[in-house]
Amino acid sequence: MRNLSLMTDLYELTMMNGYSVLGSAEKTAVFDLFFRQQGQISYAVAAGLAQAIEYIDNLHFDEEDIKYLKEAAGFNDKFLSELRSFKFTGDIFAVPEGTLVFPNEPIVIVRAPLSQAQLIEPALLNIINHQTLIATKASRVKKSAGNASVSEFGLRRAQGPDAGIYGARASIIGGCGGTSNVLAGQLFDIPIKGTMAHSWVMSFDSELEAFRKFAEIYPDNTLLLVDTYDTLRSGVPNAIKVFDELKSRGKKPVGIRLDSGDLAYLSKKARKMLDDAGHKDAIIFASCDLDEYVISSLNEQGARIDAYGVGTRLITSESMPSLGGVYKLAELTENGVRIPKIKISDTHDKITNPGFKTLYRVYDGDGKAFADLISLDDEIYDGTKPLTLTHPTMRWKSTTLDVYSMRKLLVPVYKNGQRVYDPPALSESAKYAEREKASFWDEYMRNVNPEIYKVDLSDGLYELKSRLIAEHTGGRA
Amino acid sequence: MRNLSLMTDLYELTMMNGYSVLGSAEKTAVFDLFFRQQGQISYAVAAGLAQAIEYIDNLHFDEEDIKYLKEAAGFNDKFLSELRSFKFTGDIFAVPEGTLVFPNEPIVIVRAPLSQAQLIEPALLNIINHQTLIATKASRVKKSAGNASVSEFGLRRAQGPDAGIYGARASIIGGCGGTSNVLAGQLFDIPIKGTMAHSWVMSFDSELEAFRKFAEIYPDNTLLLVDTYDTLRSGVPNAIKVFDELKSRGKKPVGIRLDSGDLAYLSKKARKMLDDAGHKDAIIFASCDLDEYVISSLNEQGARIDAYGVGTRLITSESMPSLGGVYKLAELTENGVRIPKIKISDTHDKITNPGFKTLYRVYDGDGKAFADLISLDDEIYDGTKPLTLTHPTMRWKSTTLDVYSMRKLLVPVYKNGQRVYDPPALSESAKYAEREKASFWDEYMRNVNPEIYKVDLSDGLYELKSRLIAEHTGGRA
Repeated sequence: MRNLSLMTDLYELTMMNGYSVLGSAEKTAVFDLFFRQQGQISYAVAAGLAQAIEYIDNLHFDEEDIKYLKEAAGFNDKFLSELRSFKFTGDIFAVPEGTLVFPNEPIVIVRAPLSQAQLIEPALLNIINHQTLIATKASRVKKSAGNASVSEFGLRRAQGPDAGIYGARASIIGGCGGTSNVLAGQLFDIPIKGTMAHSWVMSFDSELEAFRKFAEIYPDNTLLLVDTYDTLRSGVPNAIKVFDELKSRGKKPVGIRLDSGDLAYLSKKARKMLDDAGHKDAIIFASCDLDEYVISSLNEQGARIDAYGVGTRLITSESMPSLGGVYKLAELTENGVRIPKIKISDTHDKITNPGFKTLYRVYDGDGKAFADLISLDDEIYDGTKPLTLTHPTMRWKSTTLDVYSMRKLLVPVYKNGQRVYDPPALSESAKYAEREKASFWDEYMRNVNPEIYKVDLSDGLYELKSRLIAEHTGGRA
Repeated sequence: MRNLSLMTDLYELTMMNGYSVLGSAEKTAVFDLFFRQQGQISYAVAAGLAQAIEYIDNLHFDEEDIKYLKEAAGFNDKFLSELRSFKFTGDIFAVPEGTLVFPNEPIVIVRAPLSQAQLIEPALLNIINHQTLIATKASRVKKSAGNASVSEFGLRRAQGPDAGIYGARASIIGGCGGTSNVLAGQLFDIPIKGTMAHSWVMSFDSELEAFRKFAEIYPDNTLLLVDTYDTLRSGVPNAIKVFDELKSRGKKPVGIRLDSGDLAYLSKKARKMLDDAGHKDAIIFASCDLDEYVISSLNEQGARIDAYGVGTRLITSESMPSLGGVYKLAELTENGVRIPKIKISDTHDKITNPGFKTLYRVYDGDGKAFADLISLDDEIYDGTKPLTLTHPTMRWKSTTLDVYSMRKLLVPVYKNGQRVYDPPALSESAKYAEREKASFWDEYMRNVNPEIYKVDLSDGLYELKSRLIAEHTGGRA
């Protein structure tokens, strides 16, 4: 793990230096990390917590860092000396990786001395924004692919090494079954996938020889790339020849890969050619500028594709390349008094939710997720009384549930700077994400025009928010 | 530097293992790295070579890597033992960082034993694709900003730590003047920039107190964020009060920052308020969902903005989040004979350029870039005869230059595995990029509907390509 402690925005350190001068660095602050409704996103698959934890666990400033900050930013010696012994001493609550999350609800809450909470803002956002974005995109792609498997193939187009490595990781949480990225495979125990490149085929005198040699070396793993010259007139016939030869040696061919052209047409034609030649078990693997929309279109056209390799548009989340997560002050303790904070905006849905909060998922009598509920931390829900959920802004719209259950989504990760949570293995988070998705009605999960899942405010939070809005708009400034 | 040697796609190793079995791993191969015309890109600013060099210099496989490859991929012992002593022994040619480059021309050429050239494909593409993408986006943003300075502010929305760190680096090559990312500042000696967050303002009892305290601590660096409550009724008047106080103490206020709302309207109103109060020197710094298009629109509206902080849309290149660079086999040496290779495609402009090549920039009599010329490496241009440039596909369109000069764009970076090039300091690459841009007519550089710069093929290359196309389409397969 590299030391990312300086991976913060200058203004965080500028403010920390200021708080140090003013003696307010130790005031306890509460910050919420959440994302807002944007673009095509109806839900997100939370990811990145394991790397956020590595970052927090490794926070420290070397003498070289201190020297740099003195020269480049001119901070005062008292502050720089405080950085020398910097240690995170606060609390962090977060939803486990793989949790389905929705706009405006806190997915990470940091309660820590103000300075510390500021320092970690950019790195926390960077890590959680990125991996949640890619896990979400992977989930959308897998949704379109249905029973076909999806592998992440985007390393060469990822936005730098980490985007390739952690993007591969996040795609597994989102629903991919493997990655082409060997380093990600090694680091996170992900199945690694791959076939051959066009350059393999081009490095032999003929396509048939290229296929034959591959089958000789990998008799149990013969997946042949058939589009180097002419898919249907050369690639598939040559593949069939080699599959016949494999079979005669008692081996089972894996299948073919299409990487260009009209995948719907080619897959249907190739399927028939393979079937007619007695290779009904040979799979068709497809890649080439895929995403959830292209795959849905292929399905509509009756394409015969068993497995997908998805690259650029997955690893960059091309249709929406940032999640837009934010980190907003919700409470500040002054002279022992906890003061809830709100950020007012001209846009109603950009007004923040004040106070130290928690997040519940409410399930209906069928055990399906019904709504999420953001409440103040000290409001008590014991599950014994009927539960009335109200629309976050239109309070007259409400629903009362007699039979329901509730689950706290945020788990303690740090308590007074001590880590109290171990992230599960990646494969466990992927399984958990699958269970999460199964607990939602399909209407919320579809990729186009989904039903909007309700995220409601508790009575206590609603009243607090209304009071603070009134205070601010009634004369402040 | 982390060991990224395993950061490759599985199929590269699968092919390497195959070449090892077949004894063809040592055949010399030539691969070209280039990008194709896509979307809004008319030119790109090459970046990332310094990190590509770090990667190549660090290539090696630990025992742990070997063990992983044996278990996860089942490669044979001979190949794994070769990896143990792996060292890059080939040649690499590349355009220096900051060079303006165009679709279809090679910006990196690798001439190396086939296996080695395959191994490094994904990492080279990843690094060059990413940084070139962000440098290009930064150049476009800076183009719109004109004389206003641009700082990179996107860390929190970048696609992982590297995307933040190397994205900041690339944005400097592209034309940004600084970054908010302190780690990038430290690593690459980039000016670091920043002001205060809304949370600073919210952590005081009033906005005025927040501004006053900031000015006390940073009397020489007072840039105040004025949009926490109400920009024109509260933020700017409070900033003016504090600026008056600063001036009375003999200090010079820096200015204000707008981070929300209608930046055109607010900047014009704020400019007038500042001017009327005698703070004509106070600058207006703007941020909030900016990119080259928004900045052009602000200019059209007569916005009064002196400096921009550009975040999400720059650091993710939101309007086009991948460059789409590819790496294609161009030549393979068999039994001592160099055999040019071509990849045919149904789409004419996807057919590759065969052979071991070089790249010239041709300047006209005014010293302005006139066209680029891709030639075979052994074609000789001595600059003494008039030069006829022909359109890459329409040979009947040609231009003859009597007065011209030519420059080789690709420089040797590795020679037989020895590094023969030291990347310049980042600030030098940034200056070189500025000179590069100045050497092009503005018509090629505009962001919307630019004139397309010509990239022509030499006679030798054109003839070779035509011959290989005829061979392939005349019966192959």
